[in-house]
Amino acid sequence: MKLDMKQPILDKNDALAAQLRQRFAENHVYVVDLLASPGSGKTSTILATIEALRDEFNIAVIEGDIASSVDAERIKAQGIPAVQINTGGACHLESAMLKRAVDVLDLERLDLIIIENVGNLVCPTDFDLGENAKVMILSVPEGDDKPLKYPGVFQISEAIILNKVDTMPVFNFNEEAFRASVMQLNPMAPLFPIAATKGTGVDEWATWLAERVRQA
Amino acid sequence: MKLDMKQPILDKNDALAAQLRQRFAENHVYVVDLLASPGSGKTSTILATIEALRDEFNIAVIEGDIASSVDAERIKAQGIPAVQINTGGACHLESAMLKRAVDVLDLERLDLIIIENVGNLVCPTDFDLGENAKVMILSVPEGDDKPLKYPGVFQISEAIILNKVDTMPVFNFNEEAFRASVMQLNPMAPLFPIAATKGTGVDEWATWLAERVRQA
Repeated sequence: MKLDMKQPILDKNDALAAQLRQRFAENHVYVVDLLASPGSGKTSTILATIEALRDEFNIAVIEGDIASSVDAERIKAQGIPAVQINTGGACHLESAMLKRAVDVLDLERLDLIIIENVGNLVCPTDFDLGENAKVMILSVPEGDDKPLKYPGVFQISEAIILNKVDTMPVFNFNEEAFRASVMQLNPMAPLFPIAATKGTGVDEWATWLAERVRQA
Repeated sequence: MKLDMKQPILDKNDALAAQLRQRFAENHVYVVDLLASPGSGKTSTILATIEALRDEFNIAVIEGDIASSVDAERIKAQGIPAVQINTGGACHLESAMLKRAVDVLDLERLDLIIIENVGNLVCPTDFDLGENAKVMILSVPEGDDKPLKYPGVFQISEAIILNKVDTMPVFNFNEEAFRASVMQLNPMAPLFPIAATKGTGVDEWATWLAERVRQA
């Protein structure tokens, strides 16, 4: 019964996502959708990514949050257009919400849109937003066992960012075990260990992303 | 339209939750439901709580996860009964899932059931499980801005645990700002700063919980 109620919502979502995908393609905009737990460093990763790519590309950010606009303010402070979506309690973005944000952006002028989804490792995985890629961030303090517990998000991600690697000595994070679990779930996805606030490892991730933005 | 579809699910959930609440009360079992992000230290907090209270009370644990049973195994290794619920993708526990777990426990013998909900700051807040209290855990690495971004879970919690306080020097966590935000959302809830894996601060939290278990 739960599935019966969910499917019509997903079908409607996916139809609108397909329209968005076409608009992005026509305007040669690459769209990446970042999924992560609360507090894993999504906004810091976005700020580091902007810093690495802003000379080459025109970038905008769409911020999804249950409430507040603190993240959008942090992005705007860097002189980058940012649109805040408040989901009003919903645990993920849907394509209808994204469309309203996209409508206020100048797609013709943009090369890259970074979406920061709601902090949640579960709900956003089901919802197509018309993006080119979903990319997930796990942060070291969350623990190396997360692929076992949240396999879905690891499976659907085109790339996996491991953030806060500078705190590995503080936490009991077994990188080898983590890599082995990720490899089982998603052998194709590159894994980028970074420390977003320190800039460590950001170049490799930015290079991967830039290659895709150029081809959009 | 989304609300129209959600309400019948919630009504059905709440009716079954009321039955569970009655069973808990008849058996003088206190039930606490722990909500937190992935990797905030729910299982470590449960292990520390068990250590503090196992001499006085008979305790059981119900573990909610999307997939895997690693958490239940950690609890069972301490000689405490643990029942694993795999939600098969759902981002929260519902009372129907909880009932199946409760049915295999010996309620007459128990004083305290600790529920570890699915790692998620959003979805579990709406679902009554018949518990006596929902208690949330935020961990320091998640950041002091989380009350602004996830107000709902702070508002419905009877107590708030701030875990991993030993890592405050590593992260830019402003405890004063955090306390002020929490105070705005939920002035009645006590705040327990702990470091579950080190045992720091666990006594205060365990004392608060023990008082309630004795009155159940």
